[in-house]
Formats: sequence, structure tokens, C-alpha cells
Amino acid sequence: MAEGLLTADSARSLVDSVDAFLLDCDGVIWKGDELIDGVSETLELLRKLGKKLVFVTNNSRKSRRQYSKKFKSLGLEVTEEEIFTSSFAAAMFLKLNSFPPEKKVYVVGEDGILDELKLAGFECFGGPEDGKKNIMLEANFYFDHDKSVGAVIVGLDQHFNYYKMQYASLCIRENPGCLFIATNRDPTGHMTAAQEWPGAGTMVAAVSCSVQKEPIVVGKPSSFLMDFLLKSFNLETSRMCMVGDRLDTDILFGQNTGCKTLLVMSGVTTLPELQDASNDIHPDLYTNSLYDLVQLLQQ
Amino acid sequence: MAEGLLTADSARSLVDSVDAFLLDCDGVIWKGDELIDGVSETLELLRKLGKKLVFVTNNSRKSRRQYSKKFKSLGLEVTEEEIFTSSFAAAMFLKLNSFPPEKKVYVVGEDGILDELKLAGFECFGGPEDGKKNIMLEANFYFDHDKSVGAVIVGLDQHFNYYKMQYASLCIRENPGCLFIATNRDPTGHMTAAQEWPGAGTMVAAVSCSVQKEPIVVGKPSSFLMDFLLKSFNLETSRMCMVGDRLDTDILFGQNTGCKTLLVMSGVTTLPELQDASNDIHPDLYTNSLYDLVQLLQQ
Repeated sequence: MAEGLLTADSARSLVDSVDAFLLDCDGVIWKGDELIDGVSETLELLRKLGKKLVFVTNNSRKSRRQYSKKFKSLGLEVTEEEIFTSSFAAAMFLKLNSFPPEKKVYVVGEDGILDELKLAGFECFGGPEDGKKNIMLEANFYFDHDKSVGAVIVGLDQHFNYYKMQYASLCIRENPGCLFIATNRDPTGHMTAAQEWPGAGTMVAAVSCSVQKEPIVVGKPSSFLMDFLLKSFNLETSRMCMVGDRLDTDILFGQNTGCKTLLVMSGVTTLPELQDASNDIHPDLYTNSLYDLVQLLQQ
Repeated sequence: MAEGLLTADSARSLVDSVDAFLLDCDGVIWKGDELIDGVSETLELLRKLGKKLVFVTNNSRKSRRQYSKKFKSLGLEVTEEEIFTSSFAAAMFLKLNSFPPEKKVYVVGEDGILDELKLAGFECFGGPEDGKKNIMLEANFYFDHDKSVGAVIVGLDQHFNYYKMQYASLCIRENPGCLFIATNRDPTGHMTAAQEWPGAGTMVAAVSCSVQKEPIVVGKPSSFLMDFLLKSFNLETSRMCMVGDRLDTDILFGQNTGCKTLLVMSGVTTLPELQDASNDIHPDLYTNSLYDLVQLLQQ
């Protein structure tokens, strides 16, 4: 099915047909630490129209609390409860699956994951701390690991190294029943405004290759996060619109969960990529950036 | 087709029907820095029987020269000319494809790759040196890269980090025509005698995910190395036997190039894995270790 360009008519009809907008952050709201033009006005208008706003990001580097601060620093008022990160999703996945309190969690990732796990009451280690540790592959070197680790969570990690790769591999391979959880599999992301960087998908690919096993994905496009959204807000997915810049995470997530979908070109996806014959993920609508909503609705 | 257990009869018939043995190293000759029992006697016997011996390893950490020294340190006389490493294969691939001398090579890997590239006359950088470099993903950080890089080679790298991942990604994505070469895709290997470690496949998986592109593989099971073997030695592949411990590299390499194949269980593959219904790579013969050849031939 071919997607349609957002027009004054389709923008009005979209806004009339949904009660909530689920918004990706990187590439939709900001790029790195720079707010995308017109985002502030768009969010203000949508709130004025009585729409519920939910921010759904695969970026696991920050906790919900840290994200709320980031929104504030960019001049946007967004509460923790409106933010759903893949780091939060990872912690909630363990909670929902009654992860035993005596087990530990090993983290390949950054503070966001550790913070959410601690907030949820889980004992965890790894993260930035293990980014300082080196491996020297020498003769009879034996690398020991904690046998009480019951889950490994892999997310975006700018301090990713061979130490963490082996630690995660040993836990997953040798600890019976150890879960292998990925926050998400985005290959790249706008970690800085200036350019794209390797995403969590690259760390997940490395660990997955080492253990020859596929992870449980809790971020987009997995529908896991939607369960929490539906529990938190009294809404139907058919009356939600997922807005994002990635086809294989945002738009697929929207489609997997029965939402309407709007692709914006302010992030990683270009129009030629969307329209390429090899692409089989088609949003309902597409436009340049979130701000087009305001401009079209005012026509 | 089911494989056969090596017996006195099949060992004799194997030795009679081949002129050369291609031997994998990790898991066949040694584990880490420990010689596997009976290897010395086996190589001696095969040489006495007039068999040509060729050592074919996917491990790119060392150059041929360094491997020759390693053999010597373990009491085995093996010349550089008898050793074919994936680091050497990477350098030869560039040579064979007339890689322009004014272009540079970026290396995600260890000294073996850099050494072989320099020996072949190519300008290269990266490797262990870049293992010390850190990325700080801050606001407007822009990461620059050398536009004259015409090839990225990815191999096993115990100093793998986010810096190298991004450097490699930028070269492959932004330098027109830049080659993306993998020494090999082994998921794991016996980098130390004590246990298995993540292999080059994990670094390749991470970079491949980031650039959303598959690499050219020059090590096993790619048949690329065989071209050099055939040029170096006047032999037919039907009169060669590939001996290895990995199904997806060694045995597949032997089969891809028309050799007879012998799987040894002294490395990563176990008998249950070989016989599992999900495995579709079957060697002609299998046995516990290389030394069985001596014992069976003496019966």
C-alpha cells in the first residue's frame, strides 16, 4: 500500500480520528541536543486540541527522569509519566516476568538502563563502569563471571568493549535460563546533531553473534511497550497515531500495534528510501517534519 | 549425507587419496597457546608420508611471520610459506584487485592485519592504536574521517570500541567505492586455552549492522584463499583434505573448494552439535583429534 503525503485535508482528518499521538524523540523532537524547528508550537497545538501526548524512544542512554530534564532544558514541559524509553521497558519486562529478586542483571549499556533497573528494585552491574576494563588475551587467561546473573540487557553503549562482550556471552551461554534482552535493534541514530552514529543494534548484533542466539526485544518495533501504554492510559490503539523517523522501528511499531502512522523526514529516513522498491514498510502518511501539522491545520 | 567416523580403514584410504592436508590451527593444532596432544607426532608422520602440509587459519591477530614464530615456540617447524592467515588473505585481496596505491586502508583489528598490509606495500592505520581512543557523544560533536580511505578491513579485535565502529562506518558509508572486507565471520574462537571468546564475526556483525551492508569475506569459508593455495602449490583440490574444528568455516571451506573434509572434536564443535538435526554441514569424516590419524594408521 502506498503512503500519502500529509495535506491540509489528511492532517485534519488525522487529528480528528485520533486521541493520542505517540512521538519518537531522536529525529522527530530533536537531533542530538538540538530541538527540531517548530516542535514546540506543534506540541502546544496538539495539547490545545486535547490530544494525549506520549513520547516513545528507543534510546536507552537516559532514564525517564533524565529525559524529563532534557525536555525541560529544551523548553518543553513533559512529565516522566509521558515518557516511555526502552531502558524503562527493559526494567518493566523483568518486573512483568517476575524476575527473581535474588538474581542479578548484567548491563551492556549506559546509565539509563542501570537507573531504571535500580528504580524497579533490581540488582545490576556492568554499564559505564565496565567500559574501563580491558581484556588481555594471554595464554591461560580464564575470565570468570557471576553465576547469579539471570538476565543480560544490551542497549546503546558508547563504552562498548571486548570485556563486556565476553561477560555478556558467558552469562547468556553458561548461566541456566539467563535471559538475553535487547532494548532495541536500531542500526544507527542521531546521537549528536551533526551526524549518525552506530545504534544499539550494533552492540546487540555483536553479542547475538557471539552467543548465536536472538534476543528478546523490548523497544520498538516490539509491541511490548504498548501493553504499558494501554495499561497507563485508557485508549484504543486504533485512535492513536505513531509519529517517527524510522520505518523499521517507529512505523513498524505503529503498524504492529494497530496505530495510524506518520513518517517525518527530519531524521534518518529520506524520501528516496521510503519510495525505494526494496522498502516494504509504508506509513499511512508522510511529511517533512512535525511542524507541517501546525502549518497544514492552520490553512 | 551422514559423515563417517574415522576408522583404521578410512584413515588409510584418506591418506592414500590425498597429497595435501590443509590444517586449521585454533582447535586443531593448539588451543590458545597450548599444543593439542599428539599434534607433533601427527605432523611428523604426515610429512614422512610425503604429504604437503598447509596451515589455514582465520585468526587475523598475527601475521604469517608471527605465526611461524608461534609454531617454533611450540616445537613445530613450519615455514611462513606454509601458513595462510586471513590477515594475509585480506592484503592479497587488495593486491589482486589492484587497490590504488594512493588510497589508505582503515583497520579494525590487531597487528597481524597491519603487518600484512605493510608487507604488501599498503598504507594503513587504525588497529591497536585506535583502541585507546574514546568517543564522548556530546551535543554538536562532529567526528571527521579520512576521505582517502578506500578499504576498511575488519578482523578480531580485543580493543574494539565505539570509536572504531564509527570510523569504519563513516569510511564505508561516505567514501565512494570504499571496500568493506571481513577477515572472517567466526562467532567465537579459543583465543585462550581456558575458554571460548567472541570471534571476528562479532566485530563484523557490529559494523555490518551500522552500515547495513554485507562485507566481502576473504577467510574461510570463502574460497578466496584457495586461489592462492592453488597458485602456490601444484595441487588439485580433489587431492586435498581440509581438517578443522568448525563446521561453518573449515568444513564449509573444504566443501566449497572441492576438498575432502575431516572434522576434529578438539575445538569448538561437539558430537551432539554435529549430529543435531538442525546442522546441515556434514564432513566426509570426523574424529576426536588429529592424533587419531597416527593411532589408526599404526593399527
